[in-house]
Amino acid sequence: MKKLINDPKNVVAESLDGLELAHGDILRVHRDPDFIVRADAPVQGKVGIVSGGGSGHEPLHGGFVGYGMLSAAVPGAVFTSPTPDPIVEATKAVDGGAGVLHIVKNYTGDVLNFETAAELAEAEGITVKSVIIDDDVAVQDSTYTAGRRGVAGTVFVEKIVGAAAEQGADLDAVVELAQRVNANVRTMGVALTACIVPHAGVPSFDLPEDEIEIGIGLHGEPGRERIKLEPVDVIVDRMLDPILSDLPFASGDRVAVLVNGMGGTPLIELYIALRRVGQVLEEKGISVLRTLVGNFTTSLEMQGMSISVLRLDDEMIELYDAPVQTAALRWGR
Amino acid sequence: MKKLINDPKNVVAESLDGLELAHGDILRVHRDPDFIVRADAPVQGKVGIVSGGGSGHEPLHGGFVGYGMLSAAVPGAVFTSPTPDPIVEATKAVDGGAGVLHIVKNYTGDVLNFETAAELAEAEGITVKSVIIDDDVAVQDSTYTAGRRGVAGTVFVEKIVGAAAEQGADLDAVVELAQRVNANVRTMGVALTACIVPHAGVPSFDLPEDEIEIGIGLHGEPGRERIKLEPVDVIVDRMLDPILSDLPFASGDRVAVLVNGMGGTPLIELYIALRRVGQVLEEKGISVLRTLVGNFTTSLEMQGMSISVLRLDDEMIELYDAPVQTAALRWGR
Repeated sequence: MKKLINDPKNVVAESLDGLELAHGDILRVHRDPDFIVRADAPVQGKVGIVSGGGSGHEPLHGGFVGYGMLSAAVPGAVFTSPTPDPIVEATKAVDGGAGVLHIVKNYTGDVLNFETAAELAEAEGITVKSVIIDDDVAVQDSTYTAGRRGVAGTVFVEKIVGAAAEQGADLDAVVELAQRVNANVRTMGVALTACIVPHAGVPSFDLPEDEIEIGIGLHGEPGRERIKLEPVDVIVDRMLDPILSDLPFASGDRVAVLVNGMGGTPLIELYIALRRVGQVLEEKGISVLRTLVGNFTTSLEMQGMSISVLRLDDEMIELYDAPVQTAALRWGR
Repeated sequence: MKKLINDPKNVVAESLDGLELAHGDILRVHRDPDFIVRADAPVQGKVGIVSGGGSGHEPLHGGFVGYGMLSAAVPGAVFTSPTPDPIVEATKAVDGGAGVLHIVKNYTGDVLNFETAAELAEAEGITVKSVIIDDDVAVQDSTYTAGRRGVAGTVFVEKIVGAAAEQGADLDAVVELAQRVNANVRTMGVALTACIVPHAGVPSFDLPEDEIEIGIGLHGEPGRERIKLEPVDVIVDRMLDPILSDLPFASGDRVAVLVNGMGGTPLIELYIALRRVGQVLEEKGISVLRTLVGNFTTSLEMQGMSISVLRLDDEMIELYDAPVQTAALRWGR
């Protein structure tokens, strides 16, 4: 295992030191318990937006803390759900009297711990609502999940809901919007290689030198099928098919597309993939109004990508375009 | 070789299709010859800023085309200098009557081809000046370079010089500023793994499973030494030593730091490295005023990073903070 780390057990804590050094104008890192919070939290009268989950998917979620997006992010150990305690403390730290939304990717540990945290925060007088994100169309149930997994579509939810909260939407409106974005986004991933979790020290799964796995999960959970490597245009078609037929997307739809790198795939390849996504959607009469290309929801150094397609409505477009200032996503992207 | 590509010989052209689809509001891709140009080029009365070089280092340079940074970028084949022809055409496309600056990383092929292009453009009545970037302190001469190599410090040059041109600085002022930034920035890289150039199909060099190479070049050119993997804090110290002693940086200096991923290293590791950079500079009485952390000048999927330190003056700070709207670098970062 070759990684730029010190002691594997300090990876998350030391990374948070660097995050705070780099972005102290945007966020603060709270210690013991560890969470990341907007520098100006709590914002009085504004709904707090909290997300979190296992580390190793950076910039998700800490890179999305800031004006117009998340109020706080709670990082667990690598690929490990955060415990309830930091979630409770993050919830309290962002409570401005208007309630707090938890955005939870659908993994059993995350769901349970956010649920417990919500109950504990409610017991302290904070109104908490939760929305579960389950955008991955690859498989119905998975290693750490009952139902569908929550993956890169979470970025769209956090951006759009964060903008609404910034503009003064109340808790019920923010919950409805989060559910609506989740209901309109579909994602599918592919892995070319596994990644190595620092405290494990070995690859998260075995993949032969000439094979790829379609529908892989963010933690290397099994996907739909292993196939021989094919040209990326063919791979994109294989991924778009289940995405488009699931909602289903239809001619006339306006969409945002996220071509998301899993961490170890060059940007040049992601743009080649976007090219094919654009061709396919154009053929189907679907308009690509917005795009994001880059590493937004990663699996450490895994080579691969995911494609997310979000069906937009007028409100979502306006909120998508609203100002945002976070470490990983800035105004105008 | 597992990559998300179609035919290796179409990698750059197809990637440019994706780039234009994603960022058509910011840039246009000119075809035959291929270059990337600001959507609003030429801007009358403004100095044009052109850079370029082999592809495979994305987002450099195309991701930095836009308001407040580059006027155009000329991508060669992967790890291959662009020929003079597209450089000439890009130069003409951005000429607004105030002259054009070429920002050239110090590789023999780049230097020669930009020189030829400058002569051809001058013959057509455009005033062209060139500044050679050579920020890499690792080695004096290298595989493709006489003198020091130009690496990630180029990002600082492009940002600061681009801002000055946007604010109306004339060609002489822009040249002086580019030289000043280059004279004040120092960079050093480290590789944990090699990368695979698509049309080559094999790793760019061999590196044993337990070794890293300090001082690696952007194309896998030899560095200073191969050592056994060490904790990242030790690696950072080894890299900062030659960086800081070279200028030399001194107590009281104000600096910007770029911790640049080579493409395949997780963000979480780059932040751990930044943490150590911050500790060392603080011990030495050097103030870190600005930071960039992420993949800015890559070597395809290489695992590793580079550290750049730029000594700032008041003018550079103001220009560093000036608005920018490009694919890879946006206002506020």
